[in-house]
Amino acid sequence: MNITCARDRLNYAVQTVQKAVAAKATLPILSGIYLSAQDNKLTLQATDYEIGISCTIDAQVAVPGKIVLSGRYFQELVKRLPGETVEIASSTEDRTIKITAGASQFNLLSLPADEFPVLKPLFDKTVGISALTIKDNVLRDLIKRTVFACATEESRPIFTGALLELTETDVRMIATNTHRLALKQSITESTTVNNNVKIIIPSKVLNELARLLTSELPVDVNICWEKSKVAFNFDNVYLESRLIEGQYPDYHRVIPKEFATTATINTALFMDAVERVSLMAKDGEYNIIKFQFNADQIIITSNNPDIGKAYETIPINTDGTEIEIAFNAKYVTDILKNIGASELLFSLNTPLSPASIRPSNDEYYTYIITPVRTS
Amino acid sequence: MNITCARDRLNYAVQTVQKAVAAKATLPILSGIYLSAQDNKLTLQATDYEIGISCTIDAQVAVPGKIVLSGRYFQELVKRLPGETVEIASSTEDRTIKITAGASQFNLLSLPADEFPVLKPLFDKTVGISALTIKDNVLRDLIKRTVFACATEESRPIFTGALLELTETDVRMIATNTHRLALKQSITESTTVNNNVKIIIPSKVLNELARLLTSELPVDVNICWEKSKVAFNFDNVYLESRLIEGQYPDYHRVIPKEFATTATINTALFMDAVERVSLMAKDGEYNIIKFQFNADQIIITSNNPDIGKAYETIPINTDGTEIEIAFNAKYVTDILKNIGASELLFSLNTPLSPASIRPSNDEYYTYIITPVRTS
Repeated sequence: MNITCARDRLNYAVQTVQKAVAAKATLPILSGIYLSAQDNKLTLQATDYEIGISCTIDAQVAVPGKIVLSGRYFQELVKRLPGETVEIASSTEDRTIKITAGASQFNLLSLPADEFPVLKPLFDKTVGISALTIKDNVLRDLIKRTVFACATEESRPIFTGALLELTETDVRMIATNTHRLALKQSITESTTVNNNVKIIIPSKVLNELARLLTSELPVDVNICWEKSKVAFNFDNVYLESRLIEGQYPDYHRVIPKEFATTATINTALFMDAVERVSLMAKDGEYNIIKFQFNADQIIITSNNPDIGKAYETIPINTDGTEIEIAFNAKYVTDILKNIGASELLFSLNTPLSPASIRPSNDEYYTYIITPVRTS
Repeated sequence: MNITCARDRLNYAVQTVQKAVAAKATLPILSGIYLSAQDNKLTLQATDYEIGISCTIDAQVAVPGKIVLSGRYFQELVKRLPGETVEIASSTEDRTIKITAGASQFNLLSLPADEFPVLKPLFDKTVGISALTIKDNVLRDLIKRTVFACATEESRPIFTGALLELTETDVRMIATNTHRLALKQSITESTTVNNNVKIIIPSKVLNELARLLTSELPVDVNICWEKSKVAFNFDNVYLESRLIEGQYPDYHRVIPKEFATTATINTALFMDAVERVSLMAKDGEYNIIKFQFNADQIIITSNNPDIGKAYETIPINTDGTEIEIAFNAKYVTDILKNIGASELLFSLNTPLSPASIRPSNDEYYTYIITPVRTS
């Protein structure tokens, strides 16, 4: 292989795929980045078998070929290379790869390219797969508004992923750890080959995908999936992930149809007050803080015998019966950080039944939170 | 106690003293911040017996008094308090302290104030102490240009501190870990009561001090010391530290009087090249990289059989004999990060004798580095 390409494009490609480089590689080859050059294109690939990412950039290909370089060193090196262009050439006499930029010259040891598990893009298949096209900003919003609600501990794998669901009317993403649930719907001009589809995607893959969905202008993301695999295609990037198997629980059951109390609250004031009150609670076993919803104000309190007491009030507008209820403070601050609206609606029924937090200006975003019983 | 003060001033005072709050407190009281109020002044103090910091701000003192609050919770709370002013009042019925700001009200448990080891400022004494006055920007420069060269491991405590020396002509700071040494002199209009003074100050205290020396306009720093203690006084801050006991070695011996080779090098180009070459070396046992000084260029190389080879050249201007020499890359990059000059002089004698790196525009700053023997 012998190619020349723009340094900043190469750096972009390396940074794009490097999150898929296996951290502690069970197989040494998975610690590498795979480079293949032909037809004036350079494609980089990395995979740890859970997530695989491929990125293609323009290059002048003097000699086509395939090589694998240590992901760690190649990434750190490309980041620091000088000049405008980089030349990458495999050596004829040994298994090192010569990387030249300006007055810098490096010979990196290569890994055996034929051992690398090259990605087989789903899009190349024609049978047995489904497809959906969605704008990247819409997909990013679906992810960012929900994925934080996933479970982190692996005890129940299904909850470490978020559910991507296609209905007749919308595309939606749902995430829950069984104590709180986030649902974001998107009524978009998405073109889908079929509906009533449900696939469960690992949250770490979704976070990585959201990191890559950063185009200035909306671009199409083509999503396809088969039984055990989902793939996302946009710009010059291909990302694929294993799916989490299993039956996602029926989340409709946990979303109350109606509420006895609904308070309209300023998000920023609420956020600051909850975080301060949480200071006195977060070292407690359950990080419990209490909310007293009155007609025109909410009283937020916590009490930790080892630290002290907190008492906050903020003005609100309550419609319905007054109620006192307790929540895990973290589950409240999590939604306030992600709600993306200056005003929210906090809706409740009884001190022991699930409550809802949603932006006052977005009926397609719902967050359900289970209260904590206090004696 | 019952006081009212500006929230941002209180936050400034808490942030100033909090680095002296004992992390894992052997004595519980040392995990606290001591507040004393009188004569419309509020003084905060913290100490872990190695470093002690005190900061005084204006306050309306309705009832004078002394209290101690958990450093951790008080600091996190003050950072987040709303509004312009904060009221701090000790409770009459229990040992909690009531902190009020806007609609926020907190009752923090207090620690027994009479158990706190209140600082006894050296400046209050008049006998048996020496004093020096120096501008804060000059002192900060002395620290920042040298302290990074201190030893980190505790095996030889004396090298975990930097030497502050007063001569008849200047104030200087010296730091070394025996493999490299940094010396910064300051020919300033410093007023000193005596010279030929040598005190060894812990590097972590100096780093903390430099962090606090951030006045917009130069202010005087009054430094006092006695046998086992040094104190710094500036603005409304008092910082004291234990001194490291022992005889600091004669650093003059290790500074060559003359050199056979001196190269003039662009700092930025050199820094980038060394960092890239170091990529191939830093996982090696000694992070060794080689430098070949030729008449008009320097060739920088490294070779790690497990990773690869690096080869860099940068144009230089060499005066004297050509030489090949090897160094620990970290000791080279450390000075390049701290040299604060766009051009440097790299002076050498033989492949096995100490070399010198200094700014081309500052004869009062010297960095000595010992080469590594390579076979």
